[in-house]
Amino acid sequence: MSVTAAQGFVAAGVAAGIKSTGAKDVTVVVNDGPSKVAAGVFTTNRIEAAPVTWSREVASDGRVDAVILNSGGANACTGPEGFADTHRTAEHVAHALQATGRDVAPGDVAVCSTGLIGVRLPMDTLLDGADAAIAGLAPDGGDAAAEGIMTTDSTPKKAVAGRDGWVVGGMAKGAGMLAPGMATMLCVVTTDAQVDAATAKAALASAVAQTLNRVDSDGCMSTNDTVLLMASGASGAQPEASAFEAELTTVLADLSRQLVADAEGAAHDIAVTVERATSEAAAEAVARAITRSNLFKTAIFGNDPNWGRIISAAGTVPEHVAPYDATTIDVSVNGIQVCRNAGVGDDRDLVDLTGREVQVVVDLKAGDASATVWTNDLTHDYVHENSAYSS
Amino acid sequence: MSVTAAQGFVAAGVAAGIKSTGAKDVTVVVNDGPSKVAAGVFTTNRIEAAPVTWSREVASDGRVDAVILNSGGANACTGPEGFADTHRTAEHVAHALQATGRDVAPGDVAVCSTGLIGVRLPMDTLLDGADAAIAGLAPDGGDAAAEGIMTTDSTPKKAVAGRDGWVVGGMAKGAGMLAPGMATMLCVVTTDAQVDAATAKAALASAVAQTLNRVDSDGCMSTNDTVLLMASGASGAQPEASAFEAELTTVLADLSRQLVADAEGAAHDIAVTVERATSEAAAEAVARAITRSNLFKTAIFGNDPNWGRIISAAGTVPEHVAPYDATTIDVSVNGIQVCRNAGVGDDRDLVDLTGREVQVVVDLKAGDASATVWTNDLTHDYVHENSAYSS
Repeated sequence: MSVTAAQGFVAAGVAAGIKSTGAKDVTVVVNDGPSKVAAGVFTTNRIEAAPVTWSREVASDGRVDAVILNSGGANACTGPEGFADTHRTAEHVAHALQATGRDVAPGDVAVCSTGLIGVRLPMDTLLDGADAAIAGLAPDGGDAAAEGIMTTDSTPKKAVAGRDGWVVGGMAKGAGMLAPGMATMLCVVTTDAQVDAATAKAALASAVAQTLNRVDSDGCMSTNDTVLLMASGASGAQPEASAFEAELTTVLADLSRQLVADAEGAAHDIAVTVERATSEAAAEAVARAITRSNLFKTAIFGNDPNWGRIISAAGTVPEHVAPYDATTIDVSVNGIQVCRNAGVGDDRDLVDLTGREVQVVVDLKAGDASATVWTNDLTHDYVHENSAYSS
Repeated sequence: MSVTAAQGFVAAGVAAGIKSTGAKDVTVVVNDGPSKVAAGVFTTNRIEAAPVTWSREVASDGRVDAVILNSGGANACTGPEGFADTHRTAEHVAHALQATGRDVAPGDVAVCSTGLIGVRLPMDTLLDGADAAIAGLAPDGGDAAAEGIMTTDSTPKKAVAGRDGWVVGGMAKGAGMLAPGMATMLCVVTTDAQVDAATAKAALASAVAQTLNRVDSDGCMSTNDTVLLMASGASGAQPEASAFEAELTTVLADLSRQLVADAEGAAHDIAVTVERATSEAAAEAVARAITRSNLFKTAIFGNDPNWGRIISAAGTVPEHVAPYDATTIDVSVNGIQVCRNAGVGDDRDLVDLTGREVQVVVDLKAGDASATVWTNDLTHDYVHENSAYSS
């Protein structure tokens, strides 16, 4: 049900014809309230697509009434004309929703786009699609909505959690270009809990930091990454902030794992956990250095528990970032401690890498903090998809 | 002639049998003086191989009499036993050279190793190889020496430059794991110019920063990277420091280009030049962000001048590192300005990427500094070589 699992939301996803494949490419999600609280997290890439610039401003006052999302074109690097296209899209959606009896201002309509950079959107096709989606808005439209934002995704990503009469539900798309600063291109999460804008904003920032920002598929950061949280309050339940953040984190963690599992051309999903660091930031820095190593990622593709590549990647993190003794670190791969005290450990032939899931644990023996970063292996299919498919 | 182009040096490369292929795997280079000046630059990876620890200490007093290099094993992550192996190797070489009438102390013998991490070296084989190499030392042994350090290199890398009666000559090996902090695994440069230790050290640091450290094949930094400069003074010529540094830079630049041209599985050699930055460091940071992007590197493999991936990589560099206006940058690929003011420029179909050489120029319009970083595309062969070959 994704974004319509929560009460107070209607959604739709339609095939407008932006994509030549005939697949769904326009999604609309509307918050029918009673509350219209929202928060957003956006790419930190300085090359920012027009819809990001627009939606960041829309969400800045803590209110979003509706969001329109399109696949088939990112509307990035399209200049003032591209921004005008985004603005026009929001105006069009607001007026169309007004025609359905909803009191929606253009400045409360967020816009998200995904697809090729540097190409203008086919506006007539997009706006016709918006009309069709709005005509089809339904309380069970979440599944179609999740399909409408897919690009190279092989499956739609959806998740739901909740407790005590309120739920959090979401959808995401992304199968490459997953990197810190934001791990997904587009993600919309809804809830029928009653939360105020400050709580929503804090909970979203914290949940994203623990989940989507810990996914690093290929080290590349998109121009369009957006996570939008919308709260209707329709359940009447008013959870503690900690409970709300916990359920939101559950949904985003679930979506994050689905993104990793569907990353372009991947054969293994890899969780790199760094333990006993002096701080969580130190643990994360070491984990990220490992998940960024192409040599490590190709080794895993080759079912090779190459701990030398793991610790040499760990060794590139400066000491002031992650203090540890380089001569005492341990590395385990799928439960076998292949490296002990930075030297040869148990027999690497004992490591079974034939499954999809890979667990790498690096023990720094320096403190009591830990962090996990998720990535994928680097495969022939990754090279094929990203050399043959322009994005 | 590589390391024996300069007067005062003898060298040899032999097949000791460390490699199962029967290829040369042990090289010895000896400085017969009259001067024994030396300088070294070593990996900044905190996971440092035993020979790096040893040779850093050997070179720290500005004197190196001889260096032994082996391929077929990195002697990294081998613990105290591995360090004892390195020490024993230096002792053995010193004694063998003493038997030839040379007054060489073990503490003046540098040791370099390259190959698989985490495996002890076959010491009997190595030391027999050292004896054979020392028996074969010759003033024309530079070519064999360059062959003895190859691993996955398809060709030996050699370069010579000089003026006014003195020369600089060098050899290098490396075909992957080329990254900042040091771009080659092993490089030995010799000169018959008279230079003092301080001049040698400063010139080497500067030349490496401009050349080997600007090569970033796959973002991975080795545990064994070493550049060693040895000066015999045998020409009697005493060049200006600037002239010496210029010729040294020429040799290292030549070797750097050969390393890029032979990078594992590459189909394109890519030079990313960032112009009009506020500082050289800013230009280098932006260039490096682009050369690190797997999406950019796969696009080039696909002959796709995908400027969206170029500027989105540039956009990940924080503003305090590289100040520029993200809405005005230009990008050219092989002379065609495909991106103008962060938007669509000339027709991308005009870009010819069928050749091996690719020139990417990013104009930040923010200052007057520039920098170039060299890399390769990300190809099926890269994935194949690095998933099938353990290193």
